Amino acid sequence: MKTKITELLGIEYPIVQGAMAWIAEHHLAAAVSEAGGLGIIAGGAAPVDVIRDEIRKARERTHKPLGMNIMLLSPNADDLAQLAIDEKIEVLTTGAGNPGKYMAAWKQAGIKVMPVVASVALAKRMARAGADAVIAEGTESGGHIGELTTMALVPQVVDAVEIPVLAAGGIADGRGMAAALMLGAEGVQCGTIFLATPECQIADKYKELVLKATDISTVVTGRPSGHPCRSIKTPLQRRCLELEKTVTNQSLEEIEEATAGSLRRAVQEGDYENGTFLCGQIAGMVHETHTCADIVRNMTEQAQTLLQSACRRFA
Amino acid sequence: MKTKITELLGIEYPIVQGAMAWIAEHHLAAAVSEAGGLGIIAGGAAPVDVIRDEIRKARERTHKPLGMNIMLLSPNADDLAQLAIDEKIEVLTTGAGNPGKYMAAWKQAGIKVMPVVASVALAKRMARAGADAVIAEGTESGGHIGELTTMALVPQVVDAVEIPVLAAGGIADGRGMAAALMLGAEGVQCGTIFLATPECQIADKYKELVLKATDISTVVTGRPSGHPCRSIKTPLQRRCLELEKTVTNQSLEEIEEATAGSLRRAVQEGDYENGTFLCGQIAGMVHETHTCADIVRNMTEQAQTLLQSACRRFA
Repeated sequence: MKTKITELLGIEYPIVQGAMAWIAEHHLAAAVSEAGGLGIIAGGAAPVDVIRDEIRKARERTHKPLGMNIMLLSPNADDLAQLAIDEKIEVLTTGAGNPGKYMAAWKQAGIKVMPVVASVALAKRMARAGADAVIAEGTESGGHIGELTTMALVPQVVDAVEIPVLAAGGIADGRGMAAALMLGAEGVQCGTIFLATPECQIADKYKELVLKATDISTVVTGRPSGHPCRSIKTPLQRRCLELEKTVTNQSLEEIEEATAGSLRRAVQEGDYENGTFLCGQIAGMVHETHTCADIVRNMTEQAQTLLQSACRRFA
Repeated sequence: MKTKITELLGIEYPIVQGAMAWIAEHHLAAAVSEAGGLGIIAGGAAPVDVIRDEIRKARERTHKPLGMNIMLLSPNADDLAQLAIDEKIEVLTTGAGNPGKYMAAWKQAGIKVMPVVASVALAKRMARAGADAVIAEGTESGGHIGELTTMALVPQVVDAVEIPVLAAGGIADGRGMAAALMLGAEGVQCGTIFLATPECQIADKYKELVLKATDISTVVTGRPSGHPCRSIKTPLQRRCLELEKTVTNQSLEEIEEATAGSLRRAVQEGDYENGTFLCGQIAGMVHETHTCADIVRNMTEQAQTLLQSACRRFA
């Protein structure tokens, strides 16, 4: 499938694997890139040496383009910005902040830059700053989210910028991919769907929670503090939601204490009681384990088949 | 455009106008039906004589199928359930409650029943109760909402029931309609897009707020009390959001007092300070006034054109 995104990134399928902190490491990213999509290594708050190692290990597994994500408000952002250049990363996605000050150096290094945006204003700002594309991410996504849904956000971003737009959030199969293309996106970014792959190195309990999830298994915590985050409803999230009913300095401190390290506890330990299992609303559509290669190929083939038959049906 | 919904309802375009209390009266509903979509008169909490009058006035304006909505928890539900039969309403949409006890009588009267659902479980229950179709409504919609987005909800409902599914929420043009069809929907329900039509009898101020809205102009109030509702961010909504930061009996009472009658104040008086202007996230895509006929025709034509060209692009 050819779109502006496959051409921009030099990949076969317009499917990008979302950067999930603690989760998107070299096994997963290399598998998605090798399958013809774009794998992304999450920079998160990890030391630069760790991420360099992840990149090099991914390179041993695939010679295809590889991406990396930088959370721009993270203390390691400057170091990772340079690491991307040193390691000749082909694509950067960015979140939480303005990549403006790095843009010239990245462009000179030939890196394609795709900020994740949750509003029209931010998409415009990123386009002006020189982004090659933007990833418009809806509130149905897992992890840190904005308020707009994919359905409402994507066409509004498409109308606002000249650069290609990827749709993220709510996309689990070829139906979602075809829908995203109809909304004007040139590709998709998926996170949750890659959690239940053999290549994803998360605790078995995490995969089990995704596979067993229904449509109403996720909750959003952090709205009162202005940092909404979607994850699977676990005992920890229930406690947080209870504390959020009355926002005080004390309740916010209690929430911070309870959630510190909880993503690591989910990913590495599968700690159901005290973990934060980031996950999108489409977990209810993930019933089986598939390889990254199968996901990328099947999603694209299903989208193509749907578009072909729609063409006949609605002629 | 032919789909299971156009066949089920005997209409030309698979576009249903959403039932908006105080808003969806005979001018609007008749215009949408006459245009070849399905217009709906909102029962709301109005006296049965008022709704009978609305139906009869709509019938004077169009001989095409007409719909009505019943809020099942409303005190007038029993009366409206009978009124629909007496007035030979072709289609009923239902919200907030279980239509089970009316179903046999409605079926016998030949009425098609399409409950609005926000989760897979409710969709299944409605299908078992004998619904002819379900309207899967995403959280990007205006008014009372669920938590799932259209993109995440629609395919999960499609997978869960055998009856046709309509998509609602986030649909403002042919892109959204084409996306909904790709997700497996057989039609769409739109509300916000019909607010800025000449046929819609709301205060000019309400239309002005919709036309001027951007992607981030709506807010959700009522989450702490379990009745989330999306509307345009106005002084009243800001006050409610502030009060919601600390949920107590007193704050909930203050909110109830401030919001009582606020939809009527918005619709009839255009009262910016104290009105609740229900509105979906796609208000940011509504820039101009169009007639209902133009909306219905243009949306369908754009969707068809997009699907045709996608067929060539992704062959």
